[in-house]
Amino acid sequence: MADIPAFGLPPNLRSLGRHVHLDLYDCPTARLVAPADSRQILLRAAEKMGATIISEHFHAFNPHGVSGVVIIAESHLTVHTWPEHGYAAVDVFSCGHLNLDAGIQELKSGYRAGRSDLRAFDRGWINSGPPGH
Amino acid sequence: MADIPAFGLPPNLRSLGRHVHLDLYDCPTARLVAPADSRQILLRAAEKMGATIISEHFHAFNPHGVSGVVIIAESHLTVHTWPEHGYAAVDVFSCGHLNLDAGIQELKSGYRAGRSDLRAFDRGWINSGPPGH
Repeated sequence: MADIPAFGLPPNLRSLGRHVHLDLYDCPTARLVAPADSRQILLRAAEKMGATIISEHFHAFNPHGVSGVVIIAESHLTVHTWPEHGYAAVDVFSCGHLNLDAGIQELKSGYRAGRSDLRAFDRGWINSGPPGH
Repeated sequence: MADIPAFGLPPNLRSLGRHVHLDLYDCPTARLVAPADSRQILLRAAEKMGATIISEHFHAFNPHGVSGVVIIAESHLTVHTWPEHGYAAVDVFSCGHLNLDAGIQELKSGYRAGRSDLRAFDRGWINSGPPGH
């Protein structure tokens, strides 16, 4: 993804992180029920992005569904699945120079999503000094 | 926060989760450097929201900064801090009936934010059956 052009923003403002919401619909139920599958998908996405993995935690819920997080040196990936709705809510928050596109492709294909909705947000606007510095 | 009115959406669509981005600026550096402080702030916010805590993981980064996550039965809270910029990026993702306002107030006061920016998003749109059912 290209950087969002900062139309109308002072030229010395920059953002510290980019946050991607990736909503995956029409996923096969079988991809959404096992924590081990979500773990593999998120770790592989982190690897494709070039992220440095710090820790990872995945939980199964009763009666079904998975919640998981991978903390990376560049921020985090999270997932929550609703197998009964074929839906997974994935987040990728990064503050480094990662290959987000590669990670997102891996997430879509890993969950075998029939369709997806992606929204990207820049967060943490700071003054980086006088323009040109 | 009131529910977002679903203007223009079919009446049988509903969302599975609500995701809040809480960007906290002008926080004292001392609140942002210790994982133990972020842990206390996020756990207290989860408690105020009425969430059920499943697991929590906090890390310090070199030379400074904290990343943390609290997985709750209703989804998650995360934080990333930039002490050098007085900034913390907090997320609250919930799929249950939680008191988000109480949690957000706790997060703002816990980090002693001088100003904050909050954005809320509904995610995971599903068809909940015929209108009225």
